[in-house]
Amino acid sequence: MNEETHMIWPDGKKCAVMVTFDFDAESMWSSEDTTNLRKPSMLSQGGYGPRRGLGKALEILRDYEAPASFYVPGTTAENHPYAIEAILKDGHEIGHHGHDHLWINPDNPEEEIREMDRGLEALKACGVVPTGYRAPAATSSDMTLDLVKQRGFLYNSGFLDDVYPYRHTLKDGSKGPIELPFHWNLDDSAITYFDFNTQAAILTNDHIFQVWKDEFDVLRDWSGLVNITLHPQLIGRPSRTLLFRRFMEYMRSFDDAWFATGTQVAQAYEAFEANT
Amino acid sequence: MNEETHMIWPDGKKCAVMVTFDFDAESMWSSEDTTNLRKPSMLSQGGYGPRRGLGKALEILRDYEAPASFYVPGTTAENHPYAIEAILKDGHEIGHHGHDHLWINPDNPEEEIREMDRGLEALKACGVVPTGYRAPAATSSDMTLDLVKQRGFLYNSGFLDDVYPYRHTLKDGSKGPIELPFHWNLDDSAITYFDFNTQAAILTNDHIFQVWKDEFDVLRDWSGLVNITLHPQLIGRPSRTLLFRRFMEYMRSFDDAWFATGTQVAQAYEAFEANT
Amino acid sequence: MNEETHMIWPDGKKCAVMVTFDFDAESMWSSEDTTNLRKPSMLSQGGYGPRRGLGKALEILRDYEAPASFYVPGTTAENHPYAIEAILKDGHEIGHHGHDHLWINPDNPEEEIREMDRGLEALKACGVVPTGYRAPAATSSDMTLDLVKQRGFLYNSGFLDDVYPYRHTLKDGSKGPIELPFHWNLDDSAITYFDFNTQAAILTNDHIFQVWKDEFDVLRDWSGLVNITLHPQLIGRPSRTLLFRRFMEYMRSFDDAWFATGTQVAQAYEAFEANT
Amino acid sequence: MNEETHMIWPDGKKCAVMVTFDFDAESMWSSEDTTNLRKPSMLSQGGYGPRRGLGKALEILRDYEAPASFYVPGTTAENHPYAIEAILKDGHEIGHHGHDHLWINPDNPEEEIREMDRGLEALKACGVVPTGYRAPAATSSDMTLDLVKQRGFLYNSGFLDDVYPYRHTLKDGSKGPIELPFHWNLDDSAITYFDFNTQAAILTNDHIFQVWKDEFDVLRDWSGLVNITLHPQLIGRPSRTLLFRRFMEYMRSFDDAWFATGTQVAQAYEAFEANT
Repeated sequence: MNEETHMIWPDGKKCAVMVTFDFDAESMWSSEDTTNLRKPSMLSQGGYGPRRGLGKALEILRDYEAPASFYVPGTTAENHPYAIEAILKDGHEIGHHGHDHLWINPDNPEEEIREMDRGLEALKACGVVPTGYRAPAATSSDMTLDLVKQRGFLYNSGFLDDVYPYRHTLKDGSKGPIELPFHWNLDDSAITYFDFNTQAAILTNDHIFQVWKDEFDVLRDWSGLVNITLHPQLIGRPSRTLLFRRFMEYMRSFDDAWFATGTQVAQAYEAFEANT
Repeated sequence: MNEETHMIWPDGKKCAVMVTFDFDAESMWSSEDTTNLRKPSMLSQGGYGPRRGLGKALEILRDYEAPASFYVPGTTAENHPYAIEAILKDGHEIGHHGHDHLWINPDNPEEEIREMDRGLEALKACGVVPTGYRAPAATSSDMTLDLVKQRGFLYNSGFLDDVYPYRHTLKDGSKGPIELPFHWNLDDSAITYFDFNTQAAILTNDHIFQVWKDEFDVLRDWSGLVNITLHPQLIGRPSRTLLFRRFMEYMRSFDDAWFATGTQVAQAYEAFEANT
Repeated sequence: MNEETHMIWPDGKKCAVMVTFDFDAESMWSSEDTTNLRKPSMLSQGGYGPRRGLGKALEILRDYEAPASFYVPGTTAENHPYAIEAILKDGHEIGHHGHDHLWINPDNPEEEIREMDRGLEALKACGVVPTGYRAPAATSSDMTLDLVKQRGFLYNSGFLDDVYPYRHTLKDGSKGPIELPFHWNLDDSAITYFDFNTQAAILTNDHIFQVWKDEFDVLRDWSGLVNITLHPQLIGRPSRTLLFRRFMEYMRSFDDAWFATGTQVAQAYEAFEANT
Repeated sequence: MNEETHMIWPDGKKCAVMVTFDFDAESMWSSEDTTNLRKPSMLSQGGYGPRRGLGKALEILRDYEAPASFYVPGTTAENHPYAIEAILKDGHEIGHHGHDHLWINPDNPEEEIREMDRGLEALKACGVVPTGYRAPAATSSDMTLDLVKQRGFLYNSGFLDDVYPYRHTLKDGSKGPIELPFHWNLDDSAITYFDFNTQAAILTNDHIFQVWKDEFDVLRDWSGLVNITLHPQLIGRPSRTLLFRRFMEYMRSFDDAWFATGTQVAQAYEAFEANT
């Protein structure tokens, strides 16, 4: 148990809310099965993200005046540069999310490094130097945190073991990146992803709102980090925009919830850390 | 993002509703596992379609005066000719849906062509020259759209990347068929299909209605295309006819929803395209 | 479509209700994975049937004065003879359900015949000559219906293509057994079966009642056969007995629903058939 | 059917409630796939248990003055000794749950014995001599009950064939350990476990409460054993603590429900057995 002092939020806020997007686009469907690269209708599920979903998501963010963090694979940046421009124009953060969205495989360190560096290059080409890293599908290897530190990231967001930011300790005992933990209970891919070949149940907006509301309520009660993970291709679907609006409306009704980007939360943790 | 001008519906209608059926019959159960051809009770799940489900579906369409589009595999047309007659007698559209309902495999172009041409022959034998193509299970290869154009189809319906009709651009830069996109959120096979070997959760009519209602409401709000995909063997089951009636009743309560066949929607897009 | 005259129920009843049980006991868990024969706690899931579930089910049947049909694998009869006695004492029908509950495999006709004949012997040892056959898990081969006829069964219950009884026509054109069709929408194993290794969603009684109620309501409206398939090890679990009672209470509130065994329904069909 | 006299609870109580925890921590994710040992973010799902979930669970147990039984794999005891101290400090029972949480495999008896003995050693190092054994994931072999007896356990908790405690009879006819049966319907891993690779539906607290409430109500009505199986890493998630509190509140509203540890229930069974 980790009952020791935990993160105190700035300005007397009770909790922090990070609205984040993994902007996988087509790579969600091809990264683990490259056969799909030759199945254009299969890929079109991801194409909905840049084509329609992103615009709808940005509109809702504007309506609720919420800053967001977009974790963008290199391929998305390369194939949909106008989408990156739109995100940046609205003042949101862009973070690293691999290049081909390949899931990290502990048996393939070369691939992990290549994904990291090609992703950095693709973002650099858009004028972005990311401060946050989120691995595809919350994957990792024993090397990941070292690599995240070596590449100079301020924070990582992919562990599920806490409800407060914390700093990783690396295997050599040195200070690692700050962790901004998340959980599937606040992830739209865990609850709305549908693949015809595996047939997950399609749930109602009411159902999903209840799951998310309960998670938010308790995280707020615990003064925790509400780290919401969305995908433009999922939450931007017609019916799901109702869910996104309803959840934003609900969270925005709490004045003591601090809406912040990943970088802002990590910086607040740094400041807190310096004072304790 | 594709915020440019999109489809405007005829006669000042706010949205278009395509009620479509994939009339797979037995082929739903045998196309991906030919062992099932020797399992008559397994196949009988599909046999319910022509034997009972279709009649129930046609009755509901009549009650709500709704035109529909039936995408019919060649085998269904060959094995259940009276069913095709019943569909045509009620004035509905018949489109192409493969021959054996084989899922398109990018590694087997010969099979894709054979499915296309045998399906065309089977429909021709019923006096039908289809103007619309929908691939089984929303599958496709890099060749599919070229083939759809070569065989003279007006439209394709199998991509999931938009909520408005659009025209495909082929790899050689030429104009391809019009796309009438759909999504699993309005597909009865995504939410009611049950295979004893995989055990998807059987959901209530209330649950499914809520999913479909939210999708319809927002598509209408966006002036989109409501492309509903049903199957006589699924929506024609006793309890599911209640769901179908309820959803038709709901959609029919909006005077600004234009109920049309795929061909009618595609023609409206052609007219719109000519004027923009 | 099969819009011709269909079954008319005796005594002016509007529909028929068959409450049936597949009394698999341990064989539900071992038939498709014999490794489980050496995993006693795995098998104990099935052992709940004869140990507790059956008694609870029989009590509910008595409370609602409902005749039932139990399809019993040979192994259940051999290992739990007192259970067979209890079923017979309450006047219920016992039908055939294989011997080891092996799923029929079209590539293994010897096994299918062996299952059939060993099952018959096991029931004979209990003094039962079954008139109804239901294959495990609704499986079948091209041979099954011939075998069911050869072994002298009056009826088969395992096809899913209709909501009325009908008579099979065999491949040689001769009359086959009467079919009493069923569907997963009224099967407790489709909606309450739980295997820790596959993790189906555990649904609420309210949810399942709504699914079953809608199916019953429409089948009654269509004057169909309500063929309910239950398992003592599933519906006899504590919470599920509430569901079973509630559903029986609901169906019993309709005086025009004829509760009958499979044999009684099949005999009524024979009489109907003779008069049309 | 086992309609004979069954367990009568002490002090005129109507039912017994065992609140139990399988405290797997990281081993839940590595036991069946050791590749995960090199995927720290994957393991972090289990790490939430000792880091946060356990403290939340212990707090709720204190609030409802409920004794609990924690079944602890050896690795958890070795890696998180402070967690064991916290459990013991609150007066709860600690039982055996393997060492690496390896699922019992009937084809690997050496491993089963090693898991048993290494688990005993790890608990012994914490000053614990367990009286109860619960196998990981309710697995077992033909050898398991003999081994449980040989190692001197009073009770086993892993069979699913009854709602009352009973005594096992071993293969040689001798008396085996007392069984405290459970069922998935009251297990948080059956209804809240989420693995991104398999995508079970995330259900609402209301849904789960209804499932658990119905099971409790009928078990109480039958004077049965309410054997609830929880996991700190699952029930200790923010939203799920609401569910745990609500269910405890509900059960505690019945004065005739006897809250007891596994050992207390087994001892009550021994006393009952001696008097019948």
